[in-house]
Parts: sequence; structure tokens; C-alpha cells
Amino acid sequence: MSKGLPSRDTEFSSWYNAVVSKAGLAEHGPVKGTMVIKPYGFQLWDNIKDIFDKMIKATGHVNAYFPLFIPKSFLAQEAEHVEGFAKECAVVTHTRLKSDPEHGVVVDPESKLDEEVIVRPTSETVIWSMYKKWIQSYRDLPLLINQWANVVRWEMRTRLFLRTSEFLWQEGHTAHATADEAQKETLDILELYRQLAEDYLAMPVITGIKTESEKFAGADKTYCIEAMMGDKRALQAGTSHNLGQNFAKAFNVTFQTKDNKEELVYATSWGVSTRLVGAVILTHGDDKGLRLPPKIAPIQVVIIPIAKNDEQQTAVKNYLEPIRKSLAEKNVRFYEDWTDSSPGFKFNEWEMKGVPLRLEVGPRDVENGKAVLARRDTGEKSVLSLDEAISFIPPLLDEIQDGLFSQALQFQNENTYSVDNYDAFKKQIKEGGFVKCGWDGSDETEVAIKGETKATIRCIPLDENPEGLTCIYSGKPALHEVIYAKAY
Amino acid sequence: MSKGLPSRDTEFSSWYNAVVSKAGLAEHGPVKGTMVIKPYGFQLWDNIKDIFDKMIKATGHVNAYFPLFIPKSFLAQEAEHVEGFAKECAVVTHTRLKSDPEHGVVVDPESKLDEEVIVRPTSETVIWSMYKKWIQSYRDLPLLINQWANVVRWEMRTRLFLRTSEFLWQEGHTAHATADEAQKETLDILELYRQLAEDYLAMPVITGIKTESEKFAGADKTYCIEAMMGDKRALQAGTSHNLGQNFAKAFNVTFQTKDNKEELVYATSWGVSTRLVGAVILTHGDDKGLRLPPKIAPIQVVIIPIAKNDEQQTAVKNYLEPIRKSLAEKNVRFYEDWTDSSPGFKFNEWEMKGVPLRLEVGPRDVENGKAVLARRDTGEKSVLSLDEAISFIPPLLDEIQDGLFSQALQFQNENTYSVDNYDAFKKQIKEGGFVKCGWDGSDETEVAIKGETKATIRCIPLDENPEGLTCIYSGKPALHEVIYAKAY
Repeated sequence: MSKGLPSRDTEFSSWYNAVVSKAGLAEHGPVKGTMVIKPYGFQLWDNIKDIFDKMIKATGHVNAYFPLFIPKSFLAQEAEHVEGFAKECAVVTHTRLKSDPEHGVVVDPESKLDEEVIVRPTSETVIWSMYKKWIQSYRDLPLLINQWANVVRWEMRTRLFLRTSEFLWQEGHTAHATADEAQKETLDILELYRQLAEDYLAMPVITGIKTESEKFAGADKTYCIEAMMGDKRALQAGTSHNLGQNFAKAFNVTFQTKDNKEELVYATSWGVSTRLVGAVILTHGDDKGLRLPPKIAPIQVVIIPIAKNDEQQTAVKNYLEPIRKSLAEKNVRFYEDWTDSSPGFKFNEWEMKGVPLRLEVGPRDVENGKAVLARRDTGEKSVLSLDEAISFIPPLLDEIQDGLFSQALQFQNENTYSVDNYDAFKKQIKEGGFVKCGWDGSDETEVAIKGETKATIRCIPLDENPEGLTCIYSGKPALHEVIYAKAY
Repeated sequence: MSKGLPSRDTEFSSWYNAVVSKAGLAEHGPVKGTMVIKPYGFQLWDNIKDIFDKMIKATGHVNAYFPLFIPKSFLAQEAEHVEGFAKECAVVTHTRLKSDPEHGVVVDPESKLDEEVIVRPTSETVIWSMYKKWIQSYRDLPLLINQWANVVRWEMRTRLFLRTSEFLWQEGHTAHATADEAQKETLDILELYRQLAEDYLAMPVITGIKTESEKFAGADKTYCIEAMMGDKRALQAGTSHNLGQNFAKAFNVTFQTKDNKEELVYATSWGVSTRLVGAVILTHGDDKGLRLPPKIAPIQVVIIPIAKNDEQQTAVKNYLEPIRKSLAEKNVRFYEDWTDSSPGFKFNEWEMKGVPLRLEVGPRDVENGKAVLARRDTGEKSVLSLDEAISFIPPLLDEIQDGLFSQALQFQNENTYSVDNYDAFKKQIKEGGFVKCGWDGSDETEVAIKGETKATIRCIPLDENPEGLTCIYSGKPALHEVIYAKAY
């Protein structure tokens, strides 16, 4: 329990907050629910962003930027959509402040807007109002546009990265000529999300579809990736929506087909957010702090020089030159910590920050042509020759990446249970983990179970096998095999 | 005047709007004053962003993210600052909508906030409220943080890219232990802005300092880069502020010096925005549309295949293979336009979009081992062997980059005048261009000249030479040599 972290086993929630703070990732902003992402946390998000940006560009998507502000009336165009977002909207009503002799600076009542403006909670409405102008014919389709942006959902109970009033995300908004194409896009993106989570964040996920009650407000279908956090609770890490023709209807977006007919356009939308940073912490963190997958780590190797005087410093500095050169050539992200603090302090600090590898070099190592290489994931330390250290670092980073994934996957597997009756279900939900079971497909069952256990259907997995299952609640034949869990 | 662009000579303003629209750069959003940046325009901004992001990282700056929302009281902390921004603030007052049987969706009066929240017009106040927590000792300094973000200034008269209610920008906010360091940072950034403008945007700029009346609200000194647009008006393209201890005072941010004293921290802030995209259009555009400097162009070479049937298509496709390979290897950004439109249509379209080079390949070229290479900047066309075309492209892109800069510099020089009396001054301001002259340094003179001519002091150039000059207005000895112009 270095640096006074609360116990991860018994105080998971406090442990999370302490890691976010002590690793220098984020802090609360002055307005309730807002978040300040500190440089180290931001670089982590930026790395995730860069990776996903390349993925979507490689699949033909382009970036654009749509306004922060949406006319109130737009939100109301799609009935389910406004229902879903009305209760958490930041509303701009005025455009000026003025001095008041009694109360200091006040809002100028003269500056009241005729129509109030909403700070986007998501951009379907403003984007489809533009698509109406951009889409006339099948030649204009598909439209594969993404934006990286901030959005606002006024939340009462917030948690850094996991649930904040303002968060950063990407939101893809595509337009298609056919239902099949839109469905294919929805699933293609789900697969990209799976790859992002598993291959880069080292976070195993279940891909599935949400139930009617859990889907996005305005979608026909919502697909998701769900991950298991270190406390066995589920976290929805990304969603991909097939919006059908709902937004095309709301904004009257039609196109001329090849055979000269007028048809409504099909839509998808999909997003992942800064929540992923929270997911990484909750998946890989341990009692010493963060453990970062090398592919997204801002710093992959931290070099700790150990030197007591100027002479030793110079010796160590020179000795490190080939390491520096080699790591730079191999595009390894490294950092040398030459601050005044003690080596022990630095070890703790960089462990807290989750840097995958630590290289220690002191005067004795210089003499002997050695270096000490320590792994953050396992804590293992090896004394190596400098050449060995140089050549071992890139494959070790891969090994750590794979190791973190395997460990998380094993944890997920070990904590996923199949049950066939409600008693076993309730017992398991209380103990934690993912619970696989049959569900009769009815709203009533879903509502009842949620009311009694606080667990929700995380998704109907794409690889579900409902055959022969009965609903744990109603005893009727199961329509679906679902995954239940308590969730963030 | 291809594609019905208004005349650049006689209708510069309409010409600008038409180029923004026809080149597919941006459109107005539904809320007055907002802007939708379309994919081509966004890629242009993203390229500028990437270049500057590398520059600031290379000089030790890091990115972070601060909240969109600022408590109203924060803005009021710095007297000049609130004065400067109070009249153009988007104010959030409520957080919920609800259904109303008579009026549809309305703002829920129950959701009124206790303290109104401002959408950031700039982030000094929220950032310095955080710096108060982050800075204790000289060891915490300097703090060199930047953010890429959207900001909102509710503008009445807007213009795509040049002046919009919401715009994208970077804002650097640094904290220093000494006044000298802050001043050095302010000027270092000004130099980076000059490099960005001149070396990448091919836009020559004057570097200088703003007068008291034109400086940033809350700054001790504001430095700027000023550029001359195609209509001879000035455009402020970037500003770098030495904030002195003003924000440290407002938020009580002190640090412990090396000799254990408590001192207020010194600050700088600096920003460039999507306005730069407007500057590029206004600087380099011509009667055929945009002309983009190769270093920031989303597409550097557009390949127009000319083929009348499938056989010819296949032949051209195969013939292009070595070009494709070579351009990819050389990291040249190219695009092949295989759409159905006629070659003439495509030529116009890509000229409108300002792509620096066009490569045309038809069946006869395939037979003769040739290709046609056309420059957007000069309109020059050459018939080359395929090998020549391949090897000429990279140096030609450099030549175009340099050529655009030289042309703009020549234009700026030809339209910069020195005058020594007010009659000549007024005449020249009416005719346009930058007017260099002596100024007595008084507010009264500045206000009077602005009132009479609508021209403003763009800056006191860093290389001013006031010696022997008299003020054109008062006839007193000049305190400064200044540049006057009508400005955007």
C-alpha cells in the first residue's frame, strides 16, 4: 500500500479516486461535475484518440466539426431522443453579463435569447439538420463522418472519467442508402471498438446488443462493448447505434435512389469517450497504482539514474547514450527522471503512474556494464548487460501488453458464471461478476430483476446460445441468453 | 471566373464567402454565428494543428484539458478581464427541459442554477484557479501547458472562420517564477507563431506589440502577428500575452522562492484559432478559388485519370501504380479522382479546392509513357515522362510553397507605405494597405484617428525605428513608429 493508497480489495472506490489523483490524471473542476484532465491523463487519452483516429480513417471515415450549440427545438424533433436527454441539458439563455452596483457582475436580463440554446449532449440533431443540405442523391452516400468533441450531460452523481458533466469523445455519424449498409457499418464499428479495447487497452470485452430499455434514445438497435472492472462490476465502454431512418424522418432527409425514387436515409452513430481512461485504471490498476498497457502508455520506459555527485551524474549520463539512441530509433517512448528526489521516491511515483518498464542505472552498473530492468506488471527485476537491456525492451513491452490482457481475460473468465435459477442468480449478483442466464425477453422481467437486485442486462452477447434455456425469473422459455451484472 | 465566383478584385467579401462554400470548407450552423467545419476544411485545420502541436511539444509544452464551464464569479475576479468579455458571454442558467402541453419542450424553471455558469470565452480564470492548487514552490515552475479546445464569444457580426461565436483554437497558459522568464516565453511563442505563419501557411507577418487600447483584457502586454490579406486589410493572426502577475493576484497564486520567500507567479497566455484557415484563403486565393500551401494542403497532388471505357480505365490504373508507390513512399498526400464527372469539371473543382498539383493521365499518355502535370499557383502545365513526373513532384511542392510566400511577401511590401503627414495618411488608408507612421503614444490620438478613418494601430513592430519621426496627427515627436491599417 505504497503512498497511502486505500486497499484495492476492500475500498475499491476510494482506491480508484486516489489513483486518479496520485497518478496525476485528473481533478474536479470548479463547476460541479466538470473535470480537469491533467497532462499525464491527457496524453493517455490522446494516445487512445490517435489510435482510434487511424482506425477510422483507414476505413474511409473523415473528421469534421459541428457546433457546440443546438437550438432547443432541434432536440425536440425526435421524440425518444429528447425524452432521453431532456433531464440533463445545459441550457444557454443569455449572452451578456453586466455590472450591478449591489451584486457585482450579474446576467444582463436584456440579453435573453428568443430561443434557448442547448449545449450538445450528443450531436445527432445538429448533424442531421446539416445532412439534409448535403444529401440529395445516392451519389452523396455513404457519408462517413466523425468528430472529436466535448459534450455535456448534466449529471448529479459524477466520478472522474467514468461519469462527468462534460466529457471528451468521438462521435461518428454516418448516412447510408440501405438498411443493410447501415447495419454493416454499425457492426464494423463495434469490431473496431473491440480491437481498440482488446488490442490496445488490453481490456477484454463482450460484444453484444442492448435490450430495448437500455438502448440509445433514438436508436433502432444499440450494440456495445462491455468490460469487467477489477471489482467485477461491468462498464459499458463503447456503443454503436443503428439509428434506422429515425433521424432522417425527424429532419426529413431523403435521397434520390439510382432508379429515381425518393427514400429516407439510413443512419448510424457511435462513440467512445474519456471514460476509457477510467476503464483502463479499473481494469489494470493494483495496490501500487496504475498499470498501463505499453501501447497507450505516455511513457513506456522510465529511466532512473542513480548518482550521488556530479562525477557520477556525468558517468551515468554518458553511459545512457546508446540506450537513448536505440530507444529513440525504435520509437520507444522513454523519460529520464533527473529530479532531486530519492530513487525510492521515484520508484513509487513511476509505479503509481503505471509506466510499464523502469530502467535503473547507477555508478556500479556503469562500472560493470550493467543495468537493472524492472517490470511494472509483475514487479520482476533483472540485472542485465546494457546490450541485453537495449535489445530486451521492445519485446518486453509486447510481453507486458499481452500479459495485462491475459490477466484481465482470466479474471473475466473466472468471474463469469452461468446460472439457471433465480436464487443462484441473486446469490451470484451479490457476490459479483458477470452472470449468464436465460431471459424471456419481456420488459416486466427486466424491470423486476433490476428492482430486486440492481443488476442490469449488460447485453445480449453476439454469440448467445439461448437454446434450451429458461428465463431465470419467469421460468418461461428464454428468448435470449443475456449477461447480467451490476454496472458503473 | 470559373463556377461563378464573384470577382475577387471588385467583390472581395462575396468572393471569400463563395470560396468557403464552393471549396467545401465550412457552412453556417443552425444557431446564429456558429460554424460547421466540413471535412476538407477540418483536415486543413487539423494539419495546422498537428504542425503547431509538434512545435510546442518540441519546446517543452504539454497538453491538458480544462472545463468548458466557468463559474460566473471567476470571470469577475480580474477586473479588466471581465470588462473585456462580459458583453459576449454564453450564460448557462438551467439544466433541464420538460414537456409542456401548450408549448412543447420548454426549459424547466425548477432546474435553475444557483450560480450561473459561463461557457469559456478563454480559460485564464479556470486555469489559474487550478494553478493555485498545483503551484507551491519554485520546483513546480515553470508550468508550460496548452489546450486545444472550443471557446465561445457571442458575436453579432460573424464571418465563417474569421469571426464566429464558437471557434476552435489552442490556448497556452504558462506559469513562471520570474518576470524575465514570462517575457521570454511570450516572445518565444511569438516567434513560433511567426514560423507557423511564414514557413507553413506561406503567409508573411509583421511581429509587434499592441497598444494599450488593443491589448488583451487582463494582459500587461500583448504581442501579435499581423498579416496583410488580399484586399490589403490587416488580419490579426495570433496573439501572445505577457499577463504579468494579474491572474496570480486575482486567484492568489503564490510560490515559495529558492530563498524561502512568498511571491506571486508570472503568467503568459497565447492563442491561434481556426481564423488561420480564413487567413490562408484571404492571402492566397485567386479568381479560381483556393490556393493551398503544400505543407498544409489536405491533398497535395490530385490525380485525374482520363478514360472512356473499362479497358482504358484498367490501363490507366496500372500505369499509375509506380506513381502511387513513389508518392506514398515520399509521404506525399495524393488523391485519385475516379468519379464519373468530366475531366473539365474535375479540373475546376480541384482548382477551387486549391490542390497544389494536378496530374492528368489519359490513354495517350499511357501509350507514350507520359503524364501532364499542372501547377495550381501559376497554372503552368508540362508534359513529362512518368519518371520525370515522379521525381519532379516533391521539389515542385517545395517550389510552390516558396512561391506562394514570395508572392504574398511582394504584395505586402508593395502595399506598405510610409507617410509623414495626416493628409497623406488619410489618402493612403482610403486606398488600402499598411501605413507606417509616427505616433505620439497618446490614447487621444489613437481614438481620434480611429474615429476619423476607421483605421487602427495594428502593432508597434518589433523592429520599429521612431527616431526623428513626428506624430502624423498631433505633430509631436513620435514615441513609436506604428503600422496602421483597416482590419478584419
